[in-house]
Amino acid sequence: MNKKGNTIFFENAPRITSFAAVCGSKESEGIIGSYADIALSDDMYGESTYEKAECKMLSTAISLAVKKSGYKENEVDVLFSGDLLNQIISASFAARDYNFPFLGVYSACSTMSESMLLAAALVNAGYINSAVAATGSHFASAERQYRYPLELGCTRPPQAQWTVTGAGANLISSGGRGVKIVNGTMGRVCDFGVTDVNNMGAAMAPAAADTLIRHFKDTETSPEDYDLILTGDLGALGSRILKDLTWEKGFDVSEKHVDCGEIIYKVIESEFQGGSGAGCSATVLNSYVLTKMSAGLYGRVLFAATGALLSTVSSGQGESIPCISHAVQLEN
Amino acid sequence: MNKKGNTIFFENAPRITSFAAVCGSKESEGIIGSYADIALSDDMYGESTYEKAECKMLSTAISLAVKKSGYKENEVDVLFSGDLLNQIISASFAARDYNFPFLGVYSACSTMSESMLLAAALVNAGYINSAVAATGSHFASAERQYRYPLELGCTRPPQAQWTVTGAGANLISSGGRGVKIVNGTMGRVCDFGVTDVNNMGAAMAPAAADTLIRHFKDTETSPEDYDLILTGDLGALGSRILKDLTWEKGFDVSEKHVDCGEIIYKVIESEFQGGSGAGCSATVLNSYVLTKMSAGLYGRVLFAATGALLSTVSSGQGESIPCISHAVQLEN
Repeated sequence: MNKKGNTIFFENAPRITSFAAVCGSKESEGIIGSYADIALSDDMYGESTYEKAECKMLSTAISLAVKKSGYKENEVDVLFSGDLLNQIISASFAARDYNFPFLGVYSACSTMSESMLLAAALVNAGYINSAVAATGSHFASAERQYRYPLELGCTRPPQAQWTVTGAGANLISSGGRGVKIVNGTMGRVCDFGVTDVNNMGAAMAPAAADTLIRHFKDTETSPEDYDLILTGDLGALGSRILKDLTWEKGFDVSEKHVDCGEIIYKVIESEFQGGSGAGCSATVLNSYVLTKMSAGLYGRVLFAATGALLSTVSSGQGESIPCISHAVQLEN
Repeated sequence: MNKKGNTIFFENAPRITSFAAVCGSKESEGIIGSYADIALSDDMYGESTYEKAECKMLSTAISLAVKKSGYKENEVDVLFSGDLLNQIISASFAARDYNFPFLGVYSACSTMSESMLLAAALVNAGYINSAVAATGSHFASAERQYRYPLELGCTRPPQAQWTVTGAGANLISSGGRGVKIVNGTMGRVCDFGVTDVNNMGAAMAPAAADTLIRHFKDTETSPEDYDLILTGDLGALGSRILKDLTWEKGFDVSEKHVDCGEIIYKVIESEFQGGSGAGCSATVLNSYVLTKMSAGLYGRVLFAATGALLSTVSSGQGESIPCISHAVQLEN
């Protein structure tokens, strides 16, 4: 039995053979700008709608990851992908460009880690040789779907975050070189009763804390054992809450914790609490972090993307925001 | 390597230990009425909104499947689920009721077979002992999300189908009795350019044909080797197209093929081409079909649910409808 608690152990250590990221113009000014494969100067990416631009970013990231891996497209066994748009159309329409199978997943902004966990599980078990895990988001399509069309010019409250325009993908395979995925912790749905759709950080922090603590217990590790504990898109406020929640349970992550949403933008002004969206952790992981890991600067990274499982309908009907966080442990 | 083509073989043959279905009032008049665990007399199910009713059906089906399995709730390792509502809120909110991990999946009306495929893969690999696969849909929530609110009283064209009100779940485990899952064929996205959102059967038939044919080739079987080839919700028109498409490729499925959408309603009047929705194949499989299989009336069933991966946004932007079909082979 290669599972303990909610953590699955990958004894054959599938490898992240290649990774790729495409980011928007605003994102390119920050930490990932010089690490992303493509930094857009125009967030429309030559398309006529935001949704088509989002899909094109995702498809480009997938293509680049496949190309960089040395695998041919017809050698890829399956694509795991999903995104924030209704019915995950970015992923589905991106998958249309490829001849390999597609398994659609959804855990909001935790989709990157869920995809990687499932891809690694199938590769490790020997079912498949290679799988692509990918996701992305676009500020403008997310705003008009979840909140208001940009054209309305609505003001944003100070606890809000800014949906990242970008997409990331990696190809996970059974051998060769590259960062290893040694285990994955499956997230549980946590709902602490937050109903403010502008305060995702506060809603998601308990889910991140739940997964991190269970991960530490399942793997018998502590925060000190990691070079980096990377959460998805809690933002500045959510990160502070996470540190408090884990500290209360006896795990001090403050020295090792970094949140992708907190670091992605160069100057945080109108973004308030920082970045969010499925593309946030996907681009940071698949550019800056994996580059640094490949160079040996980080040895062991715990990647716990975080997702808020709400919709405009659930919020409109007065529901609170259930959240989730799936984690994968990466080692070089 | 326990994979050939796009088919993964489960040599340890995970079992469907238990199954459960909840169906709406209209559905209870048909073939599944006497097999479903709960047949609702009121499709609101005591809730204030259609979406909450859909979520409650799904949660009830999950609970029933767990209860009938003999497993305790804290022994269940993970839930695979998704649904048609934006951001799969039925599944996410149903998962909130449980303490076990949740891996959200989405392939529209093919979600049942995708969930079962992934659950069986993780169980077969020895990662986990048990997983629940579940999905559902609700006529009223689907109509108002995808088409028009019922209150508008819009007429429906003759090629339309009727979204099933119902939910189905099964618990897949590593041992014991029950129907075996012997392999699973991962679907590819197929898009034949259909743009009529009222004609899902025509859009999905090519995806079903693609998966069935690849399944036959990967497993070196032919339609005669099956007691039943069960597609998800092609409806009457889609089923005819499927038979033509497979026949053209040298596989005559006409003797063995049954479509859940075609058989679910007692009299087809306003439903035109029959049932559709994620709950269509989920309820038929998890009531009538698995009961008959458990009784030894069917020995080998190929279950290929079918999904249309569109959204109102993609259709509004003039896109055609990409479709997919994942299949699992069941044996008693």
